[in-house]
Amino acid sequence: MQIAIVLYDRFTALDAVGPHETLARIPGGESVFVAERTGPVRNDTGSLALVADRTFADVPAPDVVIVPGGPGQQDQMENEVLLDWLRAADATSTWTTSVCTGSLLLAAAGLLAGRRATSHWLLLDALKAFGAEPTGERVVIDGKYVTAAGVSSGIDMGLTLLGRIKGDEHAMAVQLLTEYDPQPPYDAGSPDKAPAALVEEFRARRHYLLR
Amino acid sequence: MQIAIVLYDRFTALDAVGPHETLARIPGGESVFVAERTGPVRNDTGSLALVADRTFADVPAPDVVIVPGGPGQQDQMENEVLLDWLRAADATSTWTTSVCTGSLLLAAAGLLAGRRATSHWLLLDALKAFGAEPTGERVVIDGKYVTAAGVSSGIDMGLTLLGRIKGDEHAMAVQLLTEYDPQPPYDAGSPDKAPAALVEEFRARRHYLLR
Repeated sequence: MQIAIVLYDRFTALDAVGPHETLARIPGGESVFVAERTGPVRNDTGSLALVADRTFADVPAPDVVIVPGGPGQQDQMENEVLLDWLRAADATSTWTTSVCTGSLLLAAAGLLAGRRATSHWLLLDALKAFGAEPTGERVVIDGKYVTAAGVSSGIDMGLTLLGRIKGDEHAMAVQLLTEYDPQPPYDAGSPDKAPAALVEEFRARRHYLLR
Repeated sequence: MQIAIVLYDRFTALDAVGPHETLARIPGGESVFVAERTGPVRNDTGSLALVADRTFADVPAPDVVIVPGGPGQQDQMENEVLLDWLRAADATSTWTTSVCTGSLLLAAAGLLAGRRATSHWLLLDALKAFGAEPTGERVVIDGKYVTAAGVSSGIDMGLTLLGRIKGDEHAMAVQLLTEYDPQPPYDAGSPDKAPAALVEEFRARRHYLLR
Protein backbone atom coordinates (compact mmCIF):
# COMPACT_ATOMS: atom_id res chain seq x y z
CA MET A 1 0.00 0.00 0.00
CA GLN A 2 1.69 3.18 -1.23
CA ILE A 3 0.46 6.50 0.21
CA ALA A 4 1.45 9.62 -1.72
CA ILE A 5 1.22 13.00 0.01
CA VAL A 6 1.45 15.94 -2.39
CA LEU A 7 3.58 18.99 -1.60
CA TYR A 8 3.69 22.40 -3.28
CA ASP A 9 4.94 25.86 -2.27
CA ARG A 10 2.99 27.45 0.59
CA PHE A 11 1.06 24.33 1.58
CA THR A 12 -0.23 24.17 5.16
CA ALA A 13 2.00 21.85 7.19
CA LEU A 14 -0.60 20.31 9.49
CA ASP A 15 -2.80 19.44 6.47
CA ALA A 16 -0.04 17.09 5.31
CA VAL A 17 1.33 15.89 8.64
CA GLY A 18 -2.01 14.99 10.28
CA PRO A 19 -2.83 12.25 7.74
CA HIS A 20 0.83 11.22 7.58
CA GLU A 21 1.03 10.68 11.32
CA THR A 22 -2.08 8.48 11.33
CA LEU A 23 -1.46 6.53 8.11
CA ALA A 24 2.31 6.20 7.72
CA ARG A 25 2.57 3.25 10.09
CA ILE A 26 0.36 0.81 8.20
CA PRO A 27 2.25 -2.50 8.31
CA GLY A 28 3.81 -3.11 4.91
CA GLY A 29 2.75 0.35 3.78
CA GLU A 30 4.93 3.05 2.30
CA SER A 31 4.31 6.77 2.76
CA VAL A 32 6.00 9.15 0.30
CA PHE A 33 6.02 12.91 -0.04
CA VAL A 34 5.80 13.84 -3.74
CA ALA A 35 6.13 17.11 -5.62
CA GLU A 36 7.05 18.43 -9.03
CA ARG A 37 10.70 18.40 -7.97
CA THR A 38 12.43 16.61 -5.11
CA GLY A 39 13.87 18.62 -2.23
CA PRO A 40 12.58 20.98 0.45
CA VAL A 41 9.15 22.55 -0.05
CA ARG A 42 8.31 25.60 2.09
CA ASN A 43 4.97 25.91 3.87
CA ASP A 44 2.65 28.92 4.05
CA THR A 45 4.50 30.54 6.95
CA GLY A 46 7.85 30.14 5.19
CA SER A 47 9.38 28.86 8.41
CA LEU A 48 8.90 25.12 7.81
CA ALA A 49 10.21 22.97 4.97
CA LEU A 50 9.18 19.38 4.35
CA VAL A 51 11.26 17.33 1.96
CA ALA A 52 9.69 15.88 -1.18
CA ASP A 53 11.54 12.59 -1.57
CA ARG A 54 10.02 11.74 -4.95
CA THR A 55 8.78 13.51 -8.05
CA PHE A 56 5.31 12.93 -9.45
CA ALA A 57 6.93 10.87 -12.22
CA ASP A 58 8.52 8.59 -9.60
CA VAL A 59 5.12 7.72 -8.10
CA PRO A 60 2.74 7.01 -10.98
CA ALA A 61 0.23 4.74 -9.25
CA PRO A 62 -0.13 5.23 -5.50
CA ASP A 63 -2.89 3.38 -3.66
CA VAL A 64 -3.79 6.45 -1.61
CA VAL A 65 -3.48 10.06 -2.80
CA ILE A 66 -3.54 12.83 -0.17
CA VAL A 67 -3.67 16.49 -1.25
CA PRO A 68 -3.15 19.09 1.48
CA GLY A 69 -4.44 22.64 1.24
CA GLY A 70 -2.89 26.00 1.97
CA PRO A 71 -2.69 29.46 0.43
CA GLY A 72 -0.35 28.13 -2.27
CA GLN A 73 -3.17 25.96 -3.62
CA GLN A 74 -4.36 28.91 -5.69
CA ASP A 75 -1.08 28.97 -7.63
CA GLN A 76 -1.54 25.29 -8.52
CA MET A 77 -5.08 25.50 -9.92
CA GLU A 78 -3.77 25.67 -13.49
CA ASN A 79 -0.61 23.63 -12.99
CA GLU A 80 -1.19 20.91 -15.58
CA VAL A 81 1.76 18.84 -14.32
CA LEU A 82 0.07 18.53 -10.95
CA LEU A 83 -3.46 18.19 -12.33
CA ASP A 84 -2.43 15.57 -14.90
CA TRP A 85 -0.69 13.59 -12.19
CA LEU A 86 -3.80 13.76 -9.99
CA ARG A 87 -5.97 12.46 -12.85
CA ALA A 88 -3.55 9.66 -13.68
CA ALA A 89 -3.02 8.65 -10.05
CA ASP A 90 -6.75 8.74 -9.42
CA ALA A 91 -7.36 6.37 -12.32
CA THR A 92 -5.80 3.52 -10.33
CA SER A 93 -6.00 4.72 -6.71
CA THR A 94 -7.99 2.98 -4.03
CA TRP A 95 -8.58 6.24 -2.18
CA THR A 96 -8.26 9.81 -3.45
CA THR A 97 -8.30 12.30 -0.59
CA SER A 98 -7.72 15.90 0.43
CA VAL A 99 -7.50 18.15 3.46
CA CYS A 100 -8.69 21.77 3.54
CA THR A 101 -8.38 23.57 0.18
CA GLY A 102 -6.67 20.52 -1.29
CA SER A 103 -10.18 19.55 -2.40
CA LEU A 104 -10.14 22.49 -4.82
CA LEU A 105 -7.18 20.89 -6.58
CA LEU A 106 -9.06 17.59 -6.84
CA ALA A 107 -12.02 19.59 -8.15
CA ALA A 108 -9.86 21.47 -10.66
CA ALA A 109 -8.62 18.10 -11.92
CA GLY A 110 -12.25 17.22 -12.58
CA LEU A 111 -12.44 14.54 -9.91
CA LEU A 112 -15.23 15.87 -7.71
CA ALA A 113 -17.96 16.73 -10.22
CA GLY A 114 -21.29 15.50 -8.89
CA ARG A 115 -19.70 14.35 -5.63
CA ARG A 116 -20.32 15.36 -2.05
CA ALA A 117 -17.18 17.03 -0.73
CA THR A 118 -15.82 19.55 1.73
CA SER A 119 -13.04 22.09 2.17
CA HIS A 120 -11.97 24.85 4.55
CA TRP A 121 -15.15 26.55 5.86
CA LEU A 122 -14.16 29.83 4.17
CA LEU A 123 -14.03 28.15 0.75
CA LEU A 124 -16.93 25.72 0.72
CA ASP A 125 -18.69 27.78 -1.95
CA ALA A 126 -15.73 27.52 -4.30
CA LEU A 127 -16.34 23.78 -4.63
CA LYS A 128 -19.69 24.46 -6.26
CA ALA A 129 -18.06 26.09 -9.28
CA PHE A 130 -16.61 22.68 -10.10
CA GLY A 131 -19.91 20.84 -9.79
CA ALA A 132 -19.19 19.38 -6.37
CA GLU A 133 -21.79 19.40 -3.61
CA PRO A 134 -20.31 21.00 -0.49
CA THR A 135 -21.41 19.62 2.88
CA GLY A 136 -20.85 20.81 6.41
CA GLU A 137 -19.41 17.50 7.61
CA ARG A 138 -15.83 17.35 8.88
CA VAL A 139 -14.91 14.28 6.87
CA VAL A 140 -16.92 13.50 3.73
CA ILE A 141 -16.74 10.08 2.06
CA ASP A 142 -18.26 9.69 -1.40
CA GLY A 143 -17.15 6.42 -2.92
CA LYS A 144 -13.37 6.40 -2.92
CA TYR A 145 -13.18 10.19 -2.53
CA VAL A 146 -12.54 11.42 1.00
CA THR A 147 -12.34 15.14 1.62
CA ALA A 148 -11.77 16.79 4.98
CA ALA A 149 -12.51 20.28 6.29
CA GLY A 150 -9.85 22.82 7.34
CA VAL A 151 -6.27 22.05 8.42
CA SER A 152 -6.62 19.99 11.63
CA SER A 153 -9.40 17.81 10.18
CA GLY A 154 -6.75 15.75 8.41
CA ILE A 155 -6.19 13.88 11.67
CA ASP A 156 -9.85 12.86 11.84
CA MET A 157 -9.71 11.93 8.16
CA GLY A 158 -6.56 9.87 8.63
CA LEU A 159 -8.10 7.85 11.45
CA THR A 160 -11.36 7.41 9.53
CA LEU A 161 -9.48 6.15 6.48
CA LEU A 162 -7.26 3.93 8.62
CA GLY A 163 -10.38 2.28 10.02
CA ARG A 164 -11.62 1.57 6.50
CA ILE A 165 -8.23 0.22 5.40
CA LYS A 166 -7.09 -1.76 8.46
CA GLY A 167 -10.17 -2.04 10.68
CA ASP A 168 -11.43 -0.26 13.76
CA GLU A 169 -9.07 -1.91 16.23
CA HIS A 170 -5.99 -0.85 14.31
CA ALA A 171 -7.29 2.71 14.00
CA MET A 172 -8.06 2.83 17.72
CA ALA A 173 -4.52 1.63 18.43
CA VAL A 174 -3.10 4.53 16.44
CA GLN A 175 -5.47 6.95 18.18
CA LEU A 176 -4.23 5.67 21.54
CA LEU A 177 -0.55 5.81 20.57
CA THR A 178 -0.91 9.36 19.25
CA GLU A 179 -2.95 10.13 22.40
CA TYR A 180 -5.60 11.79 20.25
CA ASP A 181 -8.01 12.73 23.02
CA PRO A 182 -8.45 16.37 22.02
CA GLN A 183 -9.11 18.98 24.69
CA PRO A 184 -9.03 22.35 22.94
CA PRO A 185 -8.81 25.23 25.44
CA TYR A 186 -11.60 27.04 23.55
CA ASP A 187 -14.70 25.95 21.64
CA ALA A 188 -14.13 28.14 18.61
CA GLY A 189 -13.08 25.64 15.96
CA SER A 190 -15.95 26.08 13.50
CA PRO A 191 -17.96 29.05 12.22
CA ASP A 192 -20.99 27.72 14.14
CA LYS A 193 -19.11 27.85 17.43
CA ALA A 194 -16.65 30.76 17.19
CA PRO A 195 -17.62 34.31 18.19
CA ALA A 196 -19.73 35.75 15.34
CA ALA A 197 -17.56 38.86 15.07
CA LEU A 198 -14.50 36.70 14.38
CA VAL A 199 -16.33 34.72 11.72
CA GLU A 200 -17.51 37.90 10.02
CA GLU A 201 -14.05 39.43 10.15
CA PHE A 202 -12.55 36.40 8.44
CA ARG A 203 -15.26 36.29 5.80
CA ALA A 204 -14.50 39.94 5.03
CA ARG A 205 -10.74 39.32 4.91
CA ARG A 206 -11.10 36.04 3.06
CA HIS A 207 -9.14 37.08 0.02
CA TYR A 208 -6.25 38.35 2.14
CA LEU A 209 -6.19 35.34 4.44
CA LEU A 210 -6.02 32.83 1.66
CA ARG A 211 -3.28 34.51 -0.31
CA MET B 1 9.29 36.69 19.84
CA GLN B 2 11.50 33.86 18.60
CA ILE B 3 10.10 30.32 18.84
CA ALA B 4 12.64 27.49 18.52
CA ILE B 5 11.40 23.98 17.72
CA VAL B 6 14.02 21.31 18.32
CA LEU B 7 14.60 18.48 15.82
CA TYR B 8 16.58 15.24 16.20
CA ASP B 9 16.63 11.91 14.37
CA ARG B 10 13.44 9.88 14.76
CA PHE B 11 11.34 12.64 16.29
CA THR B 12 7.56 12.36 15.88
CA ALA B 13 6.40 14.77 13.19
CA LEU B 14 3.04 15.80 14.65
CA ASP B 15 4.71 16.62 18.00
CA ALA B 16 6.62 19.37 16.21
CA VAL B 17 4.07 20.47 13.62
CA GLY B 18 1.07 20.81 15.98
CA PRO B 19 2.66 23.61 18.03
CA HIS B 20 4.24 25.11 14.90
CA GLU B 21 0.89 25.38 13.15
CA THR B 22 -0.70 27.16 16.09
CA LEU B 23 2.21 29.41 17.11
CA ALA B 24 4.10 30.25 13.92
CA ARG B 25 1.73 33.03 12.87
CA ILE B 26 2.19 35.30 15.89
CA PRO B 27 2.48 38.81 14.41
CA GLY B 28 6.11 39.87 14.55
CA GLY B 29 7.10 36.39 15.71
CA GLU B 30 9.70 34.11 14.18
CA SER B 31 9.49 30.33 14.25
CA VAL B 32 12.70 28.36 13.62
CA PHE B 33 13.48 24.67 13.46
CA VAL B 34 16.80 24.02 15.18
CA ALA B 35 19.04 20.97 15.43
CA GLU B 36 22.66 20.05 16.00
CA ARG B 37 23.26 20.45 12.27
CA THR B 38 21.21 22.21 9.60
CA GLY B 39 19.49 20.17 6.89
CA PRO B 40 16.83 17.47 6.71
CA VAL B 41 16.01 15.54 9.89
CA ARG B 42 14.10 12.25 9.47
CA ASN B 43 11.15 11.38 11.65
CA ASP B 44 10.38 8.09 13.41
CA THR B 45 8.75 6.50 10.36
CA GLY B 46 11.72 7.46 8.16
CA SER B 47 9.30 8.67 5.50
CA LEU B 48 9.19 12.34 6.49
CA ALA B 49 12.01 14.86 6.71
CA LEU B 50 11.68 18.33 8.18
CA VAL B 51 14.46 20.80 7.52
CA ALA B 52 16.42 22.27 10.41
CA ASP B 53 17.16 25.80 9.18
CA ARG B 54 19.43 26.72 12.09
CA THR B 55 21.91 25.06 14.41
CA PHE B 56 21.62 25.30 18.19
CA ALA B 57 24.54 27.75 18.09
CA ASP B 58 22.58 30.01 15.70
CA VAL B 59 19.69 30.32 18.17
CA PRO B 60 21.17 30.96 21.61
CA ALA B 61 18.28 32.76 23.28
CA PRO B 62 14.80 31.94 21.93
CA ASP B 63 11.77 33.28 23.75
CA VAL B 64 9.92 29.97 23.44
CA VAL B 65 11.57 26.53 23.39
CA ILE B 66 9.53 23.58 22.07
CA VAL B 67 10.89 20.04 22.38
CA PRO B 68 9.00 17.30 20.52
CA GLY B 69 9.09 13.65 21.49
CA GLY B 70 9.52 10.47 19.53
CA PRO B 71 11.41 7.18 19.73
CA GLY B 72 14.65 9.01 18.92
CA GLN B 73 14.40 10.90 22.20
CA GLN B 74 16.13 8.01 23.94
CA ASP B 75 19.26 8.51 21.85
CA GLN B 76 19.40 12.15 22.96
CA MET B 77 19.19 11.62 26.71
CA GLU B 78 22.97 11.88 27.08
CA ASN B 79 23.62 14.26 24.20
CA GLU B 80 25.34 17.08 26.06
CA VAL B 81 25.22 19.39 23.04
CA LEU B 82 21.42 19.24 23.10
CA LEU B 83 21.12 19.24 26.89
CA ASP B 84 23.54 22.15 27.29
CA TRP B 85 21.60 24.13 24.70
CA LEU B 86 18.34 23.41 26.53
CA ARG B 87 19.81 24.65 29.81
CA ALA B 88 21.25 27.78 28.22
CA ALA B 89 18.08 28.55 26.24
CA ASP B 90 15.96 27.95 29.31
CA ALA B 91 18.01 30.44 31.31
CA THR B 92 16.54 33.29 29.26
CA SER B 93 13.34 31.80 27.76
CA THR B 94 9.88 33.09 28.53
CA TRP B 95 8.38 29.62 27.99
CA THR B 96 10.10 26.23 27.97
CA THR B 97 7.83 23.55 26.57
CA SER B 98 7.59 19.98 25.33
CA VAL B 99 5.24 17.55 23.64
CA CYS B 100 5.12 13.81 24.38
CA THR B 101 8.50 12.33 25.42
CA GLY B 102 10.15 15.67 24.76
CA SER B 103 9.54 16.28 28.47
CA LEU B 104 12.10 13.58 29.26
CA LEU B 105 14.73 15.67 27.51
CA LEU B 106 13.75 18.71 29.56
CA ALA B 107 13.92 16.46 32.63
CA ALA B 108 17.33 15.06 31.62
CA ALA B 109 18.55 18.65 31.33
CA GLY B 110 17.49 19.11 34.94
CA LEU B 111 14.70 21.55 34.17
CA LEU B 112 11.69 19.71 35.60
CA ALA B 113 12.91 18.72 39.10
CA GLY B 114 10.14 19.42 41.60
CA ARG B 115 7.76 20.50 38.85
CA ARG B 116 4.40 19.13 37.74
CA ALA B 117 4.76 17.77 34.22
CA THR B 118 3.43 15.25 31.73
CA SER B 119 4.55 13.05 28.85
CA HIS B 120 3.21 10.26 26.63
CA TRP B 121 0.92 8.08 28.78
CA LEU B 122 3.25 5.10 28.38
CA LEU B 123 6.14 7.06 29.88
CA LEU B 124 4.64 9.09 32.69
CA ASP B 125 6.56 7.06 35.27
CA ALA B 126 9.89 7.87 33.65
CA LEU B 127 9.46 11.51 34.64
CA LYS B 128 9.59 10.56 38.30
CA ALA B 129 13.18 9.37 38.03
CA PHE B 130 14.13 13.01 37.36
CA GLY B 131 12.22 14.36 40.32
CA ALA B 132 9.26 15.64 38.31
CA GLU B 133 5.69 15.09 39.43
CA PRO B 134 3.70 13.44 36.62
CA THR B 135 0.06 14.40 36.26
CA GLY B 136 -2.73 13.01 34.12
CA GLU B 137 -3.61 16.38 32.55
CA ARG B 138 -3.25 16.86 28.81
CA VAL B 139 -1.44 20.19 29.10
CA VAL B 140 0.44 20.96 32.33
CA ILE B 141 1.58 24.47 33.16
CA ASP B 142 4.00 24.94 36.05
CA GLY B 143 5.44 28.45 35.99
CA LYS B 144 7.03 28.93 32.59
CA TYR B 145 7.24 25.18 31.97
CA VAL B 146 4.49 23.78 29.76
CA THR B 147 4.47 20.06 29.01
CA ALA B 148 1.91 18.22 26.90
CA ALA B 149 0.85 14.57 26.72
CA GLY B 150 1.35 12.32 23.67
CA VAL B 151 1.82 13.46 20.05
CA SER B 152 -1.48 15.19 19.13
CA SER B 153 -1.62 17.11 22.43
CA GLY B 154 0.83 19.63 20.99
CA ILE B 155 -2.09 21.29 19.21
CA ASP B 156 -3.92 21.82 22.51
CA MET B 157 -0.67 23.05 24.06
CA GLY B 158 -0.03 25.44 21.18
CA LEU B 159 -3.45 27.03 21.50
CA THR B 160 -3.16 27.20 25.29
CA LEU B 161 0.21 28.92 25.03
CA LEU B 162 -1.04 31.23 22.29
CA GLY B 163 -3.84 32.35 24.61
CA ARG B 164 -1.29 33.19 27.31
CA ILE B 165 0.97 35.03 24.87
CA LYS B 166 -1.53 36.89 22.66
CA GLY B 167 -4.86 36.61 24.47
CA ASP B 168 -7.95 34.46 24.12
CA GLU B 169 -9.36 36.18 21.06
CA HIS B 170 -6.19 35.67 19.04
CA ALA B 171 -6.03 32.01 20.06
CA MET B 172 -9.68 31.50 19.11
CA ALA B 173 -8.97 33.08 15.73
CA VAL B 174 -6.22 30.55 15.11
CA GLN B 175 -8.48 27.72 16.28
CA LEU B 176 -11.13 28.87 13.80
CA LEU B 177 -8.68 29.26 10.90
CA THR B 178 -7.22 25.82 11.53
CA GLU B 179 -10.80 24.54 11.93
CA TYR B 180 -9.81 22.75 15.11
CA ASP B 181 -13.18 21.31 16.00
CA PRO B 182 -12.02 17.74 16.54
CA GLN B 183 -14.36 14.85 15.77
CA PRO B 184 -12.34 11.66 16.20
CA PRO B 185 -14.12 8.65 14.69
CA TYR B 186 -13.41 6.66 17.88
CA ASP B 187 -13.14 7.51 21.56
CA ALA B 188 -9.90 5.65 22.20
CA GLY B 189 -7.40 8.46 22.62
CA SER B 190 -6.36 7.86 26.21
CA PRO B 191 -5.69 4.77 28.34
CA ASP B 192 -8.85 5.56 30.33
CA LYS B 193 -10.99 5.40 27.20
CA ALA B 194 -9.38 2.85 24.87
CA PRO B 195 -10.24 -0.87 25.03
CA ALA B 196 -8.40 -2.31 28.05
CA ALA B 197 -6.87 -5.10 25.96
CA LEU B 198 -5.21 -2.55 23.70
CA VAL B 199 -3.84 -0.60 26.65
CA GLU B 200 -2.43 -3.76 28.20
CA GLU B 201 -0.88 -4.87 24.92
CA PHE B 202 0.91 -1.54 24.56
CA ARG B 203 2.11 -1.56 28.14
CA ALA B 204 3.58 -5.02 27.54
CA ARG B 205 5.20 -3.93 24.24
CA ARG B 206 6.29 -0.58 25.62
CA HIS B 207 9.98 -1.13 25.13
CA TYR B 208 9.47 -2.19 21.53
CA LEU B 209 7.05 0.62 20.70
CA LEU B 210 9.32 3.33 21.96
CA ARG B 211 12.49 2.16 20.23
